[in-house]
Amino acid sequence: MNVAIVGATGYGGIQLVSLLRKNKNFKITFLGGNKSCGSKWNEMFPFIKIEKDLTIEKYSSKRVLESSDVAILSLPNGLSSSFTPELIDKGIKVIDLSADYRYKSLDKWKEIYYKEAEIYKRNDYELCLESVYGIPEFNQNEIKKSRIIACPGCYPTSALIPLIPFISQGIIESEGIIIDSKSGISGGGRTPKEHLLYSEVGEGISAYGLLNHRHTSEIEQILSYVSGLNIQLMFTPHLIPIVRGMFSTIYGRLKDPGLTADDCKILLDNFYRNCENVKILPVGTYPSSKWAKNSNDIYISVNVDNRSGKIVLLSTIDNLLKGQAGQAVQNLNLISGLKFNEGLDLTSFYP
Amino acid sequence: MNVAIVGATGYGGIQLVSLLRKNKNFKITFLGGNKSCGSKWNEMFPFIKIEKDLTIEKYSSKRVLESSDVAILSLPNGLSSSFTPELIDKGIKVIDLSADYRYKSLDKWKEIYYKEAEIYKRNDYELCLESVYGIPEFNQNEIKKSRIIACPGCYPTSALIPLIPFISQGIIESEGIIIDSKSGISGGGRTPKEHLLYSEVGEGISAYGLLNHRHTSEIEQILSYVSGLNIQLMFTPHLIPIVRGMFSTIYGRLKDPGLTADDCKILLDNFYRNCENVKILPVGTYPSSKWAKNSNDIYISVNVDNRSGKIVLLSTIDNLLKGQAGQAVQNLNLISGLKFNEGLDLTSFYP
Amino acid sequence: MNVAIVGATGYGGIQLVSLLRKNKNFKITFLGGNKSCGSKWNEMFPFIKIEKDLTIEKYSSKRVLESSDVAILSLPNGLSSSFTPELIDKGIKVIDLSADYRYKSLDKWKEIYYKEAEIYKRNDYELCLESVYGIPEFNQNEIKKSRIIACPGCYPTSALIPLIPFISQGIIESEGIIIDSKSGISGGGRTPKEHLLYSEVGEGISAYGLLNHRHTSEIEQILSYVSGLNIQLMFTPHLIPIVRGMFSTIYGRLKDPGLTADDCKILLDNFYRNCENVKILPVGTYPSSKWAKNSNDIYISVNVDNRSGKIVLLSTIDNLLKGQAGQAVQNLNLISGLKFNEGLDLTSFYP
Amino acid sequence: MNVAIVGATGYGGIQLVSLLRKNKNFKITFLGGNKSCGSKWNEMFPFIKIEKDLTIEKYSSKRVLESSDVAILSLPNGLSSSFTPELIDKGIKVIDLSADYRYKSLDKWKEIYYKEAEIYKRNDYELCLESVYGIPEFNQNEIKKSRIIACPGCYPTSALIPLIPFISQGIIESEGIIIDSKSGISGGGRTPKEHLLYSEVGEGISAYGLLNHRHTSEIEQILSYVSGLNIQLMFTPHLIPIVRGMFSTIYGRLKDPGLTADDCKILLDNFYRNCENVKILPVGTYPSSKWAKNSNDIYISVNVDNRSGKIVLLSTIDNLLKGQAGQAVQNLNLISGLKFNEGLDLTSFYP
Repeated sequence: MNVAIVGATGYGGIQLVSLLRKNKNFKITFLGGNKSCGSKWNEMFPFIKIEKDLTIEKYSSKRVLESSDVAILSLPNGLSSSFTPELIDKGIKVIDLSADYRYKSLDKWKEIYYKEAEIYKRNDYELCLESVYGIPEFNQNEIKKSRIIACPGCYPTSALIPLIPFISQGIIESEGIIIDSKSGISGGGRTPKEHLLYSEVGEGISAYGLLNHRHTSEIEQILSYVSGLNIQLMFTPHLIPIVRGMFSTIYGRLKDPGLTADDCKILLDNFYRNCENVKILPVGTYPSSKWAKNSNDIYISVNVDNRSGKIVLLSTIDNLLKGQAGQAVQNLNLISGLKFNEGLDLTSFYP
Repeated sequence: MNVAIVGATGYGGIQLVSLLRKNKNFKITFLGGNKSCGSKWNEMFPFIKIEKDLTIEKYSSKRVLESSDVAILSLPNGLSSSFTPELIDKGIKVIDLSADYRYKSLDKWKEIYYKEAEIYKRNDYELCLESVYGIPEFNQNEIKKSRIIACPGCYPTSALIPLIPFISQGIIESEGIIIDSKSGISGGGRTPKEHLLYSEVGEGISAYGLLNHRHTSEIEQILSYVSGLNIQLMFTPHLIPIVRGMFSTIYGRLKDPGLTADDCKILLDNFYRNCENVKILPVGTYPSSKWAKNSNDIYISVNVDNRSGKIVLLSTIDNLLKGQAGQAVQNLNLISGLKFNEGLDLTSFYP
Repeated sequence: MNVAIVGATGYGGIQLVSLLRKNKNFKITFLGGNKSCGSKWNEMFPFIKIEKDLTIEKYSSKRVLESSDVAILSLPNGLSSSFTPELIDKGIKVIDLSADYRYKSLDKWKEIYYKEAEIYKRNDYELCLESVYGIPEFNQNEIKKSRIIACPGCYPTSALIPLIPFISQGIIESEGIIIDSKSGISGGGRTPKEHLLYSEVGEGISAYGLLNHRHTSEIEQILSYVSGLNIQLMFTPHLIPIVRGMFSTIYGRLKDPGLTADDCKILLDNFYRNCENVKILPVGTYPSSKWAKNSNDIYISVNVDNRSGKIVLLSTIDNLLKGQAGQAVQNLNLISGLKFNEGLDLTSFYP
Repeated sequence: MNVAIVGATGYGGIQLVSLLRKNKNFKITFLGGNKSCGSKWNEMFPFIKIEKDLTIEKYSSKRVLESSDVAILSLPNGLSSSFTPELIDKGIKVIDLSADYRYKSLDKWKEIYYKEAEIYKRNDYELCLESVYGIPEFNQNEIKKSRIIACPGCYPTSALIPLIPFISQGIIESEGIIIDSKSGISGGGRTPKEHLLYSEVGEGISAYGLLNHRHTSEIEQILSYVSGLNIQLMFTPHLIPIVRGMFSTIYGRLKDPGLTADDCKILLDNFYRNCENVKILPVGTYPSSKWAKNSNDIYISVNVDNRSGKIVLLSTIDNLLKGQAGQAVQNLNLISGLKFNEGLDLTSFYP
């Protein structure tokens, strides 16, 4: 399978090259970039060498079509949608890391991503409907058959994997869910911005996007879909001074306050029994984001407050792997007829 | 006023020396230590010099009594209670940074601090009853008259100051409060422990003490007291890789879902209108823990989710100042007849 | 004395406002900015409030002239030189934080800052000659009388203060000096650049500008001046993941290999006996950059290798204070007839 | 090959388990620990699972002898020497990560490690003489045949690999070499010590062990050996706030000042042409320690100061892999008849 990586020099793109360069099932055949066009990959990234060096090129559908079977787009929101329809049309499968195809309703996208919607005049309603939300632990069967896969953001991934087993089975009340997430700085990308400078974020923690962060609606859409209910929740993202890593602390109310933490753990075990990258921890064992770092795993711990019938879920991932590029490769595996964790057996180095 | 600092070489003690060494209202007359006994302060801490150097001494009530009017105890839980009764008895006022006098009920303390209770066979029920909880923004009148003041932990401080205005006035439902806190590593103290090593906590985030962290009951006690209700809440502490700083994200349900964020901000403004160190931010402005670092201020931001009638409060402090030594000096000011922020007009350096 | 701060929202400018806003000897009368023009200072920096809020304005000589007696310029290299001649001409004293007036020879500046020289067509040879290099610990008498003071970069400050006593007295050989410096990231400024992103520099160390970093010639110029010799040295700057702080490890060869570390310490003590902000440490005590952080002090430790007759000097400063804004205020004090450390008695918080 | 890891829960040990657990050439058959004795590995380290879980055991030569062919000792200095002679005697090969067998002369060891020498009354002169210094890039032929291999410390590794080509060929003067090294905190190990706490080292840099750090003599011994001269140098270690990584900046004087940076690069290329884990960078490309992190590679960059005939070498490694456990596995490979980089083709994740 020949793979084009478009947006290769951002953090998502760099991970993709890292993951695929020694993967015998895939061959990187195109590297798309922007400011770095014309540079040799191995000169820019001498520490992530690819065997047969490639030149980073400006995106051109012609070049992608002639070189590749599938394109992974790691591009700013909006820009993806200007490339994808043509690629799909010409028979290239697309795995998109942006938000452009995460909403079934293009109108919803236009509402949430209104700034991007002004720049990119989209009309690809059907492609949005066709697109499959790319969490393979949950819907691999749909992904396998899909031409276009929208990879979720890192925040939704860290929240949905622990929540879906409980929401889809009606165990947690649909009202009152709170997701308090903490993200490493690399989640903000590689384009220089003041609020991502070391001096600004080092030795500090802050919250942003309260109440109406764009991922709130993305998480709500998926939870509403799996529950058949209209789920509204609160999501508070925070920036913490680590390069890689995401940690979500999730609160909800159990419908049956008699459920124990062990019951909930067993439920998670069962739901994910075929997903070796989903690590359900013993009750009372709480993960560090370092456990998941540089791996494609998600660690989940569950506990229950007997006094109040509340459930707490902790989840942690590497925001750039399971939260981005690793997930993309899982989806790439699926559309290539492979098991979704093929080639992703990475382990954290500690400490 | 002559001040003894017992436990001077821990992080709390170091801040106390920093704050008091140039404060014209107080004179440091005794420095108590443990492993560092016999060392000169200025040799151990050449970067925090005191004008007239002192030798760090082993604690002795005799030495404290002969040298000082007030003792600030920055000691491990339990140990404080073995010094305090005698000091109080002999006319020395005590400002205690441990948890020993934070509970009105000694039996409750014995339940929560059961390990310490086994080592220290306490019987000072009346002193516990007499002790005043040392948040001057809330109960300065009681503090002024007190012989023994129990300074709250950093977590309770960061949670109670934003919550008390709403809880005491019955604006937030007593059920369902969630406090999701993030602490810098210095909160764990200066005694070497594996989980506080740079290599263990650097580049990671983790949660601990879910559901039954000891500060849960401390916060509940105070909120129950101010509301006259039996308040039970959830509190989740996290460790994040910053040296100093604490950030709490607090969720609750408004009784009147028609209240706006602006209403809530005005309520905070009014409640703390005489506390210049409580900084209520404009709606939509969210603080970084760096704003409060090296200061004795607390920054609070409030927002309301119109869809669900939920309130979110963000608060941030320097865990070692407003969350520990700065608060002690506020209380010291009060028992000395001074305004509580006297000499505490510190400003963060940025970045 | 009315002070204009031009470039107020960069890291240098922010420190200047911090230092001057409560200084009774000075009044901030003008805040010049760029992207932030039109914003109120207190809204942008609610954690560094000035009593009488000011609006950040676009630079205009008219506005500076009508409001201020002295201008502190914290601007990109080259830009300073386009404002300074007019200001000086009209009677405003200038304290410049850029490199524009650090070289006596404008031609040398044009050679070293050749990129800037292409943009800014300078001809102010005389002003360069007139300008005084602003290290008050060394040449306060010249500074006092000056109309234009060029503040050294943070690297030169950290290297020159320990070296000058030895070089000016001919104790270290003029050949073979090596300065191995490590800088916090804030030294790179607040303008967003890829190599200053948290994700790029976090958890890493790198060297840059080997052999021909622009500060090499600046240091050489001053050492050659004080020694009367043509001094050539090696200077290697490194970036390390701390927000603030600079640490220089300096190696040289003693002319008299019989000198001991104690001899060298005494020499430093004597040279700086009137500079309370220069802290010469006991032999065998090595500083951390944290000791100097948030202060205007420099800590120096000296040792001698008896085997080889080599001297090692360690020095550490806060790059944004003693390495930038604090030094500017020292110079401001001097031209205002004050002692140079007036109002700069800041102490590090620890940890 | 059955491998015993003694000291399995320190940072060196954890890396060894990480590296060997999926290595088809080796089987971990014994995990020795101390405080963690009796615990299951997979419960302590759920993020570094071994397929067939092992219980961590107290060291016993009997257990090592019955289970293993080779023992890797990751133990405090001195303790190794109390286990090694018996193991060697009974036919177990030993790869030792401590300093106990790094000196050919036991008397030299006793002089340098005098504190340990008081506790451990050693008399194994011959074993010291027999022991081989384990840098496979340099002396793989001796390692292959050896029964006991002393792995160098991380500092010596980072200094010797760049220096040996120049020293062994007499290109750099034997006098005047300076090694200025910067180490991540994990180099200090996992045993809790105050100076390794996050709060102590975070946001700071410091130097330690000036002039007589114990690694100075280790480096000098090897360089003297390869040059046939008595080499004395200066070595200054620094602690910087990164978990993993080591960066050395090395200065020396070229005998032939006409040599260019390119000449020196070619010399390095030739010397290490068969070592794919030694990455010689193009002249003018300077590495970050992040490039080497989580890999077993060493990155080297060389430059020459034409003005003074000085050479600067930059080298960076992961202190726990190439600087410790990775090197041990290289040596393990060699004594097992494998190529030394077998199974060590790890790449840094970036950022």
